[in-house]
Amino acid sequence: MRRSRDVPMLVDRARAGDPRAVARLITLVESGDELLPQVAAALAPYTGRAQVIGLTGSPGVGKSTTTNELVRALRARDHRVGVLAVDPSSPFTGGAILGDRVRMQDHATDPGVYIRSMSSRGHLGGLAAATPQAVRVLEGAGCDVVLVETVGVGQAEVEVASLADTTLVLLAPGMGDAIQAVKAGILEIADVFVVNKADRDGADATVRDINGMIALGERGPGQWRPRVVRAVAARGEGIDELVTAVEKHHGWLVEHGELRRRREARAAAEVEAIALGTLRDRMGSLRAGTPLAALAARVADGSLDPYAAARELLDQLDLSDG
Amino acid sequence: MRRSRDVPMLVDRARAGDPRAVARLITLVESGDELLPQVAAALAPYTGRAQVIGLTGSPGVGKSTTTNELVRALRARDHRVGVLAVDPSSPFTGGAILGDRVRMQDHATDPGVYIRSMSSRGHLGGLAAATPQAVRVLEGAGCDVVLVETVGVGQAEVEVASLADTTLVLLAPGMGDAIQAVKAGILEIADVFVVNKADRDGADATVRDINGMIALGERGPGQWRPRVVRAVAARGEGIDELVTAVEKHHGWLVEHGELRRRREARAAAEVEAIALGTLRDRMGSLRAGTPLAALAARVADGSLDPYAAARELLDQLDLSDG
Repeated sequence: MRRSRDVPMLVDRARAGDPRAVARLITLVESGDELLPQVAAALAPYTGRAQVIGLTGSPGVGKSTTTNELVRALRARDHRVGVLAVDPSSPFTGGAILGDRVRMQDHATDPGVYIRSMSSRGHLGGLAAATPQAVRVLEGAGCDVVLVETVGVGQAEVEVASLADTTLVLLAPGMGDAIQAVKAGILEIADVFVVNKADRDGADATVRDINGMIALGERGPGQWRPRVVRAVAARGEGIDELVTAVEKHHGWLVEHGELRRRREARAAAEVEAIALGTLRDRMGSLRAGTPLAALAARVADGSLDPYAAARELLDQLDLSDG
Repeated sequence: MRRSRDVPMLVDRARAGDPRAVARLITLVESGDELLPQVAAALAPYTGRAQVIGLTGSPGVGKSTTTNELVRALRARDHRVGVLAVDPSSPFTGGAILGDRVRMQDHATDPGVYIRSMSSRGHLGGLAAATPQAVRVLEGAGCDVVLVETVGVGQAEVEVASLADTTLVLLAPGMGDAIQAVKAGILEIADVFVVNKADRDGADATVRDINGMIALGERGPGQWRPRVVRAVAARGEGIDELVTAVEKHHGWLVEHGELRRRREARAAAEVEAIALGTLRDRMGSLRAGTPLAALAARVADGSLDPYAAARELLDQLDLSDG
């Protein structure tokens, strides 16, 4: 009861700029706390306005350095910036304090920047479920730009990246990333390609490869053609060009009604995932005595087929408020 | 109506050993045909008895060759064998005729062997949903051993492998597979490791690496300790040892009540996935006019939070038979 009453106060403090309140709310979100629906309800009025930028790429392409420089450039344009560094494979909980990454120390004392690492540990729906809520916390805290940085390997990361308005895919010369990108379907999610470490051998070839892939890609007349930006993030080079590309894409999204469309599609996916998660919980696990366990035993011995079992399970499902 | 009446006849023909009927049933399964529940119902009485062996590994480790040799060895022991070669990344539909892989031509004329490639194309729930049904078709057709061969990369493949009673993980010397295996969580699913191409340089090191990982793995006193088998599948070497290891593991599963437990857990996951798929269908997509679309629009503009939206969606959900 007491904790439940804390939520509106915590949201008020986060809105007033208290970094500890922001940290506390993200921890609640990340751990899939039972207060999550209340947190979401308290935050809703302050959400839906921030620009969400996804940034993904293989290990070693310079994601953190690029994020760091992007934050600097966005701050110089007077944006309040939130950063979620999402690592699905991290064994660490994300419960560290704000500014928990050494490389982000440049911004540790800047009250206009919130930085947070997240891992999927503890959250039932995984990062795909937790990340949109964490974005809402940062929006509630007044961030008008939220950067979501993920390792670009695998389905979960693609899902996380898909919550962005604009997705940046980082590559580096000579890493075979271009081929990897196609394989992983990353080409389809990239709005802007960043060839980082562009002072290295092979940068021209990488840019050429990407441009070739873009040229081959099928696009309708009204569709966005991905931009390619060269950067040397470690020296701050190309970052202004990157910000310009992001702004161009944002303008295009607004102009074509695509921003609204993407956000509604994302909201629909999120609502559906929460609803399915609720239903899954109600279906119960394999613990003895649950309807699912009894049905599974009959399917395993061949006395019932799985479709008939699923129908029986749905018939027994209580949809009244749990 | 007419097609619906065909199902029992098709199952009868498959049970009588008609390979075209088996192929037709797997195509129905793979395409997520609306007749699927009827197919599953007709097959149920004949399922739950076959031994399911999963075989996974990176491209180039020799999965097809090993499968081919395993089939030969199992045939020599008078088993009827089904093979499902599952490739989640394949752009081809699996609608090819039985014995569609050149490398499997050895068994093309053997009526005791069914071989089938599958892809996830067309099936809503993906391979994780289609594969258990395809295993049932092969069981129904009289196979007492079903080999499921998958490329060991990514979550989908781990899920597919998880439907096996016994999972074989293939590695080859000098491919960095050992490290990859740990990363992908494949160590946790392996009951038997096969170091194929064991005549090559680095085979000893690979065996040592795996044994080291096994030694470090946490196991309770009653748990199975993964076996390591060396093989040169291209020359048929090590295959008898592999069959022996598989038989040992099967005996261990039976002895410890683990076979029953695994199969019930799998059946539960399958029933749950079908039930959730049904519910997802009923929730509707983002097409204008559906409840989900209306709720998503309110979430996107911040006038409703996603948890409240999910509750409203569930309240509107019709669970009566669709």
